[in-house]
Amino acid sequence: MVVRVSLGSRSYDIVVEPGVLASVGPRLRALGVGTRAALVSDPAIRRLYGKTVAASLEEAGFAVTAVDVPEGESAKSLAVAEECWNALLEARLDRTSTVLALGGGAVGDVAGFVAGTYMRGVNFVQLPTTVLAQVDASSGGKTAIDHAQGKNLIGVFHQPRLVLVDPLTARTLPEREFRSGLAEIVKHGIVLDAEYFADVEASAAALLGRDAATLERIVGGSCRLKAGVVERDERESDLRAVLNYGHTVGHALEAASGYGRWTHGEAVSLGMVAEARLAERLGIATGDTTRRQERVLAAVGLPLEAGPLDVEAVLAAMTRDKKARDGRVPFVLSPRIGEFRLVSDVPASQIRAVLDGLQGGPGDGHR
Amino acid sequence: MVVRVSLGSRSYDIVVEPGVLASVGPRLRALGVGTRAALVSDPAIRRLYGKTVAASLEEAGFAVTAVDVPEGESAKSLAVAEECWNALLEARLDRTSTVLALGGGAVGDVAGFVAGTYMRGVNFVQLPTTVLAQVDASSGGKTAIDHAQGKNLIGVFHQPRLVLVDPLTARTLPEREFRSGLAEIVKHGIVLDAEYFADVEASAAALLGRDAATLERIVGGSCRLKAGVVERDERESDLRAVLNYGHTVGHALEAASGYGRWTHGEAVSLGMVAEARLAERLGIATGDTTRRQERVLAAVGLPLEAGPLDVEAVLAAMTRDKKARDGRVPFVLSPRIGEFRLVSDVPASQIRAVLDGLQGGPGDGHR
Repeated sequence: MVVRVSLGSRSYDIVVEPGVLASVGPRLRALGVGTRAALVSDPAIRRLYGKTVAASLEEAGFAVTAVDVPEGESAKSLAVAEECWNALLEARLDRTSTVLALGGGAVGDVAGFVAGTYMRGVNFVQLPTTVLAQVDASSGGKTAIDHAQGKNLIGVFHQPRLVLVDPLTARTLPEREFRSGLAEIVKHGIVLDAEYFADVEASAAALLGRDAATLERIVGGSCRLKAGVVERDERESDLRAVLNYGHTVGHALEAASGYGRWTHGEAVSLGMVAEARLAERLGIATGDTTRRQERVLAAVGLPLEAGPLDVEAVLAAMTRDKKARDGRVPFVLSPRIGEFRLVSDVPASQIRAVLDGLQGGPGDGHR
Repeated sequence: MVVRVSLGSRSYDIVVEPGVLASVGPRLRALGVGTRAALVSDPAIRRLYGKTVAASLEEAGFAVTAVDVPEGESAKSLAVAEECWNALLEARLDRTSTVLALGGGAVGDVAGFVAGTYMRGVNFVQLPTTVLAQVDASSGGKTAIDHAQGKNLIGVFHQPRLVLVDPLTARTLPEREFRSGLAEIVKHGIVLDAEYFADVEASAAALLGRDAATLERIVGGSCRLKAGVVERDERESDLRAVLNYGHTVGHALEAASGYGRWTHGEAVSLGMVAEARLAERLGIATGDTTRRQERVLAAVGLPLEAGPLDVEAVLAAMTRDKKARDGRVPFVLSPRIGEFRLVSDVPASQIRAVLDGLQGGPGDGHR
């Protein structure tokens, strides 16, 4: 499946296809870029796919420099970005050169930030190897590093020239990381496409079993939904906020807990549960819509309960959210599956109530 | 004079007017931005104009945070950018907030880089107080910090929302800094507009005397020429390279000498002399065109001779230039006043010859 992201002079293809990583060389060549390339990855991912990608690039005539970053979120630091810039300069990459990100969302975020700021922006290619990165982070051009005060606070919009998604790389993921990626898939269904959501519901078992055909169809469908949003709002001025469903609470949970407690997907799952209940409390959605979301999240092994929370710390983290406007945070809520609505001015008492409820256990007065 | 820079949704005005800094508050308000603002400046400039600007902003309802950066090029470091990001987070600036740069090119470059990367880009306003920044750096959206390997290697394109130019601020500049800015004015004339060049030639004495009417006309005219180029090539893919006239050699001279020996304008003056002579050697321009450029540069107090040079080091610096394409540097040359041509594949021997000649003295075999 090829998904075209139409953004004028910044348009690009997302190619979803088993084995596609082995074709990166000729595909990049076809874009007419310069011959120097940097392949940014972490050691674990490089062991799995580095050889395939580097060989394809070299056969197509590219001079490839390997740039290693740490595994996971710790890659998204200013110090790592600086090491990458140094490596690019050392390898004499110029404005016609290409930075490729091979790995999960963190590798793509920091490599994209580096590509977007090196000499004011060079070619960038995403080779996402986690479900999370495939369906969400790798397309759309959002790049970032973290700051002590929060994730993704420093970054740029920098669209890739090409995204290659091999849905079978999902089979090499640890179970928890694999399930984490499914949260964004569920999210796309909830706020964008009821038919797709129904497919995810019906395919939950096959997805968890990492069935090849199911992965290709569901991952490809999610890329298509994401691309449609990016095309209509490249710079997240309005519509694109829809993709933040579950993230207003999710990001705040991550920030308030110091990022170690949940994977990003788990935090987003909890965020969607909280925001579904918020919509219900505000009279925007019915309890049926909440329960349908909770059922599919549970079916793909994602959490519905957070355990003990410092509710005030989570609320405080929310006001530091990048989406805050003069101190207030807008919410994306879903009135019914496949639809969304932006809601400003949600009373803090209502947010507090759903965060309380998220802690679960016998003290949960909300359910 | 108001110069409109038409870039679709990124369009903005350059307002050239004596006393314009006192009107920044209502002008920014009219753009509908959020109420938080950071005023980035260096201590010396803040003493001169900080109160006027802050008062205007506060009267218009803005909450203003002062962010100090070091004077001169040392502001353009990653460490300073990081301090600025910290200050913006501390002051709770969000995506609707505005970063204002009050000062010379260095302040604008680092503040613009910070504005372009903070939360993936916030509103940015340029309040340039040096001639160099007024006629060149403040419009066009090029922002950057330096790297040990060269100037401006890390940066982004981030257009300002507004540029306010008070031509009378030139009167508070030290003599050497003032003259340095005139190099970019001469450059605009040479490659873009013969009539404007003739005005600069005729006005050299009045310019050097910092006559108010002359400054307003010449600075405004230079802003207009720059805006025309930016409109036609926002991302420096082709035409905008014309603004690099004198800079291919100029940047290399600065890089090879460690940046302390000449001001940027002096290096660009030497670069224009070298590139004029290069055009002559290549049979692209006549000796008359070279001499006319040299005469006007001398008339406004800019250097025509570099003194002793490490020619090979300058050549090596050129291959690390951001404009290099797969290791080769294209030159912008002027076949006659008011016109330019991009020339690739200039033989190294010819470049070496003009660099030799630039050293001046009795050993200059070229003249």
